[in-house]
Order: sequence, then structure tokens, then C-alpha cells
Amino acid sequence: MGQETARTSAAIAIGPRIRKSPFYEATRRYGCKAFTTYNHMYLPVFYESPEADFRRLIDAVTLWDVGVERQVEIAGPDAARFTQFLTPRNLSTCAVGQCKYVLLTTERGGIVNDPVLLRLAEDRFWLSLADSDVLLWARALAHALGYDVEVREPDVSPLQVQGPKSLDVMRDLFGSWVEELRYFWFRETELDGIPLVISRTGWSAERGYEVFLRDGQHGDRLWESIMEAGKPYGIGPGAPSTIRRIEGGLLSYGSDMDLDTNPYELGLGRLVDLEQEANFLGKAALGEIAQTGVARRLVGLEIEGPRLPGNEEPWAIAAGGRTVGKVTSAVHSPRLEKNIALAMIATEASDLGTRVEVATPTGRHTAEVVELPFFDPKKRLPAQS
Amino acid sequence: MGQETARTSAAIAIGPRIRKSPFYEATRRYGCKAFTTYNHMYLPVFYESPEADFRRLIDAVTLWDVGVERQVEIAGPDAARFTQFLTPRNLSTCAVGQCKYVLLTTERGGIVNDPVLLRLAEDRFWLSLADSDVLLWARALAHALGYDVEVREPDVSPLQVQGPKSLDVMRDLFGSWVEELRYFWFRETELDGIPLVISRTGWSAERGYEVFLRDGQHGDRLWESIMEAGKPYGIGPGAPSTIRRIEGGLLSYGSDMDLDTNPYELGLGRLVDLEQEANFLGKAALGEIAQTGVARRLVGLEIEGPRLPGNEEPWAIAAGGRTVGKVTSAVHSPRLEKNIALAMIATEASDLGTRVEVATPTGRHTAEVVELPFFDPKKRLPAQS
Repeated sequence: MGQETARTSAAIAIGPRIRKSPFYEATRRYGCKAFTTYNHMYLPVFYESPEADFRRLIDAVTLWDVGVERQVEIAGPDAARFTQFLTPRNLSTCAVGQCKYVLLTTERGGIVNDPVLLRLAEDRFWLSLADSDVLLWARALAHALGYDVEVREPDVSPLQVQGPKSLDVMRDLFGSWVEELRYFWFRETELDGIPLVISRTGWSAERGYEVFLRDGQHGDRLWESIMEAGKPYGIGPGAPSTIRRIEGGLLSYGSDMDLDTNPYELGLGRLVDLEQEANFLGKAALGEIAQTGVARRLVGLEIEGPRLPGNEEPWAIAAGGRTVGKVTSAVHSPRLEKNIALAMIATEASDLGTRVEVATPTGRHTAEVVELPFFDPKKRLPAQS
Repeated sequence: MGQETARTSAAIAIGPRIRKSPFYEATRRYGCKAFTTYNHMYLPVFYESPEADFRRLIDAVTLWDVGVERQVEIAGPDAARFTQFLTPRNLSTCAVGQCKYVLLTTERGGIVNDPVLLRLAEDRFWLSLADSDVLLWARALAHALGYDVEVREPDVSPLQVQGPKSLDVMRDLFGSWVEELRYFWFRETELDGIPLVISRTGWSAERGYEVFLRDGQHGDRLWESIMEAGKPYGIGPGAPSTIRRIEGGLLSYGSDMDLDTNPYELGLGRLVDLEQEANFLGKAALGEIAQTGVARRLVGLEIEGPRLPGNEEPWAIAAGGRTVGKVTSAVHSPRLEKNIALAMIATEASDLGTRVEVATPTGRHTAEVVELPFFDPKKRLPAQS
């Protein structure tokens, strides 16, 4: 999400307008050094250092306070119909107990948020949100269009347990059923009386789980239970890793997409089902875009030159003397020993191998359009790792 | 908005997901020491110290980067009707060139935001926002209900020039017409070709102005022009002052009110016109609340005991052994030499002079319900100042 820079850092002010998660005290106790905010709450960014946290994530297992992933709960007689109305993804095959990564779109096809959806019952859904006020969006639509649903934010605060040893920790804590939990499925359970939902999801591109705490007063106890169970596996505190998520080609709402981005520009046409019978917001607009094609596309870029800092804002991309796009997220990957980035770039400059120029704080550097993801553990490891 | 605490501070991570205002580089150059975020952007919190900044605000004049006050522009044939639909305040007498403090409410009467509205033309309005995604709220309603309006976020970034000497600075920069600008009116103008709107508004409880930059590329030049003009009057960088705004009884969305707060609980019934012909969202619900009365009210509290830190979260209030409310915003006022606070408290415990107990990080302290505002320069100054 954010990343630290070389410039003298400023403090984050702590006040009552931004909420603390139920794990906030634990994150301070465990030495969180930098925060950002997300959905009007504090979000830890790193503990030891972004690189050290990244190493622990890819080598062992890390525990993240992502209480900022607020849930919008949609319940009631029209819940299935209304939830389907909010997203172009076809939910007709989404079973109770299943998760789906979905895009929420406007009537113009612009992206409002990219949550993970959980179907808790035939008539009850959670949207586990990225950073925008979907509670307002969904309430306005439900009211104005007369859907018979209750739209609210329940007392739910997720943690993520991410890393190759996450299964060991989760099995020891919750039992062997965790081994059977399929990718993007969840189960309701409890730990010493603490009510939880556990899903096999996460934002790390490593194996991982989310643990949705359903009663905020038990935050500290849950955190310490997981830390205790993780000790044999080298667990440590962590946070969404900019390095790992860019390596994995994972997108961040607000950085890589916004209200003016459509699913096709992101290469996420698979999340739009124009053939389904159900109506959804943006269906006509997305149908047109699907026919016309897009003028820009999200691509991977390798940026040459010295080790670059993470980008604090979009960096302009030029080709043939004119601006053709912007770098939306950039980071130096220590294991790839490369500057890697996600970029939104004009279609004519988006082919693999295209060479462009990126304006960074340290000057203009040549970059090349490359395949995403940058790193996939299922493929052969790059020579230098 | 936020305030610093005694605990070791953590850094704020700077990344592309949170936007910088056109004045961000200036705020770093002028030594901003702490930031928060607001409407997905960085907001300076203090420079020298919260107290030193406060002194400059009440003694001289300060320049604030409040680019975070995003504008939602509502334009088109139905603009007046739609804008009226969003707020219970009667806008029928709002002239072009006038500002109004308004509450936006849901169909249940809960508060979505408390912006300052500017009427730029018969068919064009800006909502200068507090911290919530009103762009999503308004777009959803306009689309679903078929209003013929364009709802968008224009390239507008406000500064505030606040303090007793603000008029001197503004007169020197823009001319003597500023003297005639009435409270909550505005004028479109420019400075060396930079397009601006100037209003006599602000969030300081001191005399002040807002300068709405209408072209983000000129942020630094505008900032330096105002700093230069302010030199003779002792201008310095500043930010929304928690001390001054609580002294003045100004409310902060997210701290003192939220979606579950209604206007009557805030004592802001004057902003609800149930008698007007026009329909607005929440009219029926607010009509019922007006008849039934409210179960809790926002009050001022003086908290006894030693100098308290600002509250990082709501503090529980007890009376007669049970919880009767919460402190929503607290601060120590150095000139009043008192701990002052805004609190949402059960109606039966809300009479002036009622004594309650507040649970603070330094223990339980007795507090008394007092009149708002705590400080009003038009009244006789308190004995100790």
C-alpha cells in the first residue's frame, strides 16, 4: 500500500477521527514503525523494515492487522439480487461458504471498489473492502432502487496469516480441517469462544489465510493466540507487502485503479459476465467497452537504472517524445534485483517488449513492458534467486 | 482533526494510494512534522507544535493546506433540485455567490457529511467536503433516481488563511473588495493568472478566508504568494487546530458525528427545515425524531484534574455507576488552562452543571457539562486569559 521513502519521515497523528482496529495496541507493542490509513482506520505498513518484513513473508509466516478491511454486510430477501446488481461478476454459481474476488462498478463501468465477497448464507453476503466508502454507495442504491435489504457494517475485523508456513500455524491452532479448506472458500468457527470466520484468501501472493474476528473486544487475545501458535514456525508481525504484491501482480485500489478505470483496462474481463441474464450496474457501458476495446492497459514494467525508491505518486511514462501513461505502483524487488512496476499505458505502447521512458525522482529511466506476474513460485525461479 | 500523543510516534508512510495536494511539497519545505489523511489525501496536522501553531492562529495569521476538502460539483438542469434533495437545509434562498453550512443525511436522518456548500451558478454547486466519499453517495443517488445532473470532482484545492490578521493579508493580495466580502459569501477571482474562488469561511473560529485553487499546477506559486503577502503580519504555516476548534465548539465529522448521528442530537435543528415544500432525503425520519425528541445530545464538558492528552478514541462517560455517553473530542486549552471536550451524552445527563465521570488514559476524572462554545472572543474574556 504505502512505502517508506528516503526523505525525513513525518509522524502520523493519532486522533479520534481515524479508528483503531482491535489489534492496534498489539501492533504498537510489536513495534510497528509506520502506518497509513485505509477506510478511516490506521493500517500498519512495516515493522522491522519493508525488506525484512518481506523476507519473513516469503520465508516463513507473518501476521497482519488488516482490520481496515471493513465488511459491508448485505442481508435480507433481496440480498442475492442486490449483491449481483453491484458487480459484473456472475454470482449465480457462488455457493454458501465460497469467496469471490469481484469488482463493483458504476453505471459507466468505472470501478468503485474491488472487494472479496463472502457468501455467508443464501441471503447474506459480506464485501471485504478496499479503500472506499462502499457503505454509502450500497446504501444509496438499495434505498433509491427499493431493494429489500439491510446494508450495514458489522463488528468484523480481519487478520491475515500469510506465508509458506501459514498452513502449519493454522492447522496447529484450528485443526486438520484447515488442510482441506480450498482456495477462496471459508468456514465459520471459533477459538476459545472467540467467534471467527476463516478463509483461504489474502493479499500476499503467498499461501495464506484470513481470520475474521467477529467480536472486537477479543482482538488482543486472538492476536496473541496466533503469535503463540506461530512461534515454532518463525512467525512475526507483518503488513501488506508492496514488494511481494507487485511481484505477484496484485492490484491496489486507489493506486492501480479508481473510479475512472474499467475492468477491461485492468485485463480483468474474466470478472465481467455480459451474457448472464441478471442485470448489473454498468452492464450496457461495459458491453460497449468490450466491443470498442480499450485505449489503455495495465502492464508490468521493468525499470532500468539504479535501485529506485517506491513511487509516492504516479510517474509519467513517455514514448516517442509524448506521454503515453503512468506508473501506478513501483518498488525495488530485492530478490529479483530489479525495479518493478505496474503501469497504465496507452494500448499502442503496451505490447510485451515495448521500450518506454519513466520520469522518476532520480531522473528518466528506460523501461520495458514485461509479462505479469514478475514472480511466480510455480514457474522456474529466476536465475539470481 | 488528529493530535499528537506522548507515546513514541510512528511515521506516516507516503505512497501513491493516498494523494498529495498541490501544496504538499510546500508543507514539507515549511517543516510539517505530522500528517493525517482525509478524503484519501495527506493533511498536515502541525508544524512547530500544536500549541505554537495555535498561538500564531489566535495572535496573527496562519496558512493551511486543506486540499483534502474535496469538492463534489453538481451541475446541470436538475442541479438545484438534486442538491436540495441531499440536505435538510432549505436552499431556496441560497443566492449565487453564497455559502451554506449543510448536513447531508440518509433516509433515516443519519449524517453522511457536513460540507460547506457554494452556489456557483443557478445550476452549479460545490460541496466542500468533510471526510467521506460523497462522490459515491451522490453519484449513486443521481443515477438511481434519474436526476439530470453531472456529479464530479473538479480540480479544486482549498487553502485556508485564518487568524485575526487574515483580512490584512487578503486585502493586500486581492484588493479592498475583500473588506466587503460578507461572512459565508464568496467571489471568483484570480491572482497573476491563477484562477481562484475566495470565500469568507473557515474552520478555525477565528476570522478567516478560504482560497480555492482551480488549477492544481499552480499550488506552489499560490502558497508562496500568500506567504509573501503575509510576512508583515507574522504569517506562518498552520493546520486545523484541535485546540481552537474545540474552544469554538466546531464539530469534526468522524469524531463528533457519523452515519448514526442525527442533526438534532448535535443541536443543529436549525439546519433542518421540515416545513419546506421540497422533498429531501430523511424528511420523514427527521420529522419523527423532531416529534419524539432525542435520547442523547452533544454537549461541552470541562474535565477536572491534570493536563490531559488529546483523546485518541472515544472516552467512556459514567454517571451513577452506568455508562451515559462518550467524549468524542478532547484537548487541553492552554489559554483557558482547562481540559475541554465535546461529548455525546444521554439527554438525562446533559443539563448544564451535571457532573459525570470520564475514563481517560490517566484515570477517571470528574467533569461538568458546560455551555458551548468554551471561548467566544465576542464575550468577555475568561478571567485567566
